[in-house]
Amino acid sequence: MAQTASSEIPDFAKGDGMVPAIAQDHQTGEVLMMAYMNPESYAETLATGRAVYFSRSRNKLWRKGEESGNVQLVKSIFVDCDADTILLKVEQLGGAACHEGYKSCFFRQVTPAGLNVVGQRVFDPKQVYKK
Amino acid sequence: MAQTASSEIPDFAKGDGMVPAIAQDHQTGEVLMMAYMNPESYAETLATGRAVYFSRSRNKLWRKGEESGNVQLVKSIFVDCDADTILLKVEQLGGAACHEGYKSCFFRQVTPAGLNVVGQRVFDPKQVYKK
Repeated sequence: MAQTASSEIPDFAKGDGMVPAIAQDHQTGEVLMMAYMNPESYAETLATGRAVYFSRSRNKLWRKGEESGNVQLVKSIFVDCDADTILLKVEQLGGAACHEGYKSCFFRQVTPAGLNVVGQRVFDPKQVYKK
Repeated sequence: MAQTASSEIPDFAKGDGMVPAIAQDHQTGEVLMMAYMNPESYAETLATGRAVYFSRSRNKLWRKGEESGNVQLVKSIFVDCDADTILLKVEQLGGAACHEGYKSCFFRQVTPAGLNVVGQRVFDPKQVYKK
């Protein structure tokens, strides 16, 4: 799968072998999260239709939802003008993309008075992730 | 401005002094672009209400729209759960965020047959940017 003709798009070389990937709800347009993809995770995303990222902290493929069940079904994929950022339009199963149980990871708004939680909590992380 | 109490949010230390910042149309939800912010550009964004990024290629502040006039008026700012990514909801003046003249930088869709231009071109870059 690494031998595709369009191996320069996305241009993984720019960011040390990884590019940022934004996941957006395909229906509402809500931005759910941002993570990183390497060529292997991108290829697996294309092949399976499910979002697969590369976890920088764990240094391995991150099949989104493999523990929580909150898989992202990929509806369409876009690349930006510089080919160094990916945009995924997804159907977020389980209703929440964030490991803290919110629909979107961007559940905190910056205000002059500090951070304000504006997101809706969909699940309790303690019940979904067992150590 | 660097001496704010909440200097750890966003957490610029994680990404070598920069964090990704996603700009989204505040009305339509369309994702317009992704760029980077350092503490200085973030502080100027907060202070002016206009999106200011840090250009990695030019290694300096990038006051979005300073050449094209396509300024981004910031309507709201969010941070993600890890505090290492910023989401800006903006009003994009001039109708186009992309230097290639498209409304969104994500104007190309990945399809099995290759890249497909799906975005609408709003302006001709040659007429907007003079060398």
